[in-house]
Amino acid sequence: MSQAAEFLPAAEAAAEAAGAVIRPLFRSALLVEAKGDASPVTEADRGAERAIRALLAERHPDHGVIGEEYGETNADAEWVWVLDPIDGTRAFVTGRPLFGTLIGLLHRGVPVLGLIDQPTTGERWIGVAGQPTRFRSAFGGTPRCRPCASLAEAELSCTSPDMFDAETAPRFGAVKAAARRTTWGGDCYAYGLLALGLVDAVVDATMKPWDWAALVPVIEGAGGSCTDWAGRPLRLDGDGTVLALGDPAMLAEVSGLLAG
Amino acid sequence: MSQAAEFLPAAEAAAEAAGAVIRPLFRSALLVEAKGDASPVTEADRGAERAIRALLAERHPDHGVIGEEYGETNADAEWVWVLDPIDGTRAFVTGRPLFGTLIGLLHRGVPVLGLIDQPTTGERWIGVAGQPTRFRSAFGGTPRCRPCASLAEAELSCTSPDMFDAETAPRFGAVKAAARRTTWGGDCYAYGLLALGLVDAVVDATMKPWDWAALVPVIEGAGGSCTDWAGRPLRLDGDGTVLALGDPAMLAEVSGLLAG
Repeated sequence: MSQAAEFLPAAEAAAEAAGAVIRPLFRSALLVEAKGDASPVTEADRGAERAIRALLAERHPDHGVIGEEYGETNADAEWVWVLDPIDGTRAFVTGRPLFGTLIGLLHRGVPVLGLIDQPTTGERWIGVAGQPTRFRSAFGGTPRCRPCASLAEAELSCTSPDMFDAETAPRFGAVKAAARRTTWGGDCYAYGLLALGLVDAVVDATMKPWDWAALVPVIEGAGGSCTDWAGRPLRLDGDGTVLALGDPAMLAEVSGLLAG
Repeated sequence: MSQAAEFLPAAEAAAEAAGAVIRPLFRSALLVEAKGDASPVTEADRGAERAIRALLAERHPDHGVIGEEYGETNADAEWVWVLDPIDGTRAFVTGRPLFGTLIGLLHRGVPVLGLIDQPTTGERWIGVAGQPTRFRSAFGGTPRCRPCASLAEAELSCTSPDMFDAETAPRFGAVKAAARRTTWGGDCYAYGLLALGLVDAVVDATMKPWDWAALVPVIEGAGGSCTDWAGRPLRLDGDGTVLALGDPAMLAEVSGLLAG
């Protein structure tokens, strides 16, 4: 898997290119006037994905790309980039610097490289399969998950109580009831905090490949696990559930509750 | 009320003193190891409040102080400072840079000066009665609430779905059902975003004076309103409900729903 590290310079350059598109729109008059309308966000999202795609096409023209905004290009290539230019649209729209640009790379369908980039604060998590996760931030933080043997000790995080349906809500509810505490909001940023040992579990549903591809190498390289609710590896044909644990020792307990 | 502006230098110096105590503890190994235990947060909270109190006692020894950690000192003085060194404890514990140091000043019980300070990002909102709100941030943002005539157009924010009891939950639920969208999390930061025109309404319950005293001048100076759920001014003997609106034209509609 060490070959994945070769592609890190392209991933970092792509994050820079996306950030240059996104930063001027964050908290802009355009966003204030749109009052939550999707259009300025869509513009930022699309502009950033175009910038990333242009860069990757130049550097690695044989690679495939799957992006939230522009779909699939050469998606059966050996190496496929999976992109979410703005993960956490609601955070972006409301001015919270907790959204992120997600740049993941799959090798024959397996996530092997991932960047979580926060373009306004300058924070960046870098995960490469087989390497310890790296993190840069002006606010501190060490990229290493912490031990947590059971949910009773766990800080749980979830993007929104509104993301579950009639079938998944009670299963999430069982985990929430067993956890020590729950904090809300955060999208990809919550997974980044798990990789810093500040959150112990993140449970989400209805996740697309661009929501999780970049997270897996970041979390695994910090000592955690990032799977579906049943503990299976995340793959393109999965069911959209995501369970990240800082301490994989909790997997049986949490998966059991999520099985209903 | 212009006399309040005289005390702004002390408020800013107090925020600096608190930040110097808080920053080294944010995302520290101490916090990671405590796994959500209150002790390191309590230490940061207490240390920061002591630093603020020492500074205010030196500059304005005739003023009173009400603080979350150390209670009341000379609370029947003409000028009383109301302090929350770390508002948003869960954000602090989980590493989200959305907590804040709140420094408010009451004149005969009326909030006339307020600082919302985010010591890790360096963001600061400054409200002084009768003056336009000021805001500094490396991430952009303009301190002016936006027009929003009805909840159907409103971006609603609330700290947590878990903060309501059997009596207040359905009243909040009615507002949430009428709002265009709801985002979760944020504590004082959500009120700051309302003052930037990025959020239209914030509804919270069980708020203490140190949770709201600093917010009122910031929001009013940006063109919004910050009252209790019934639309009454926030006072020390209030009922703990808080309703902030970017556009006071919404008050009758939202208060009506919150009345049940």
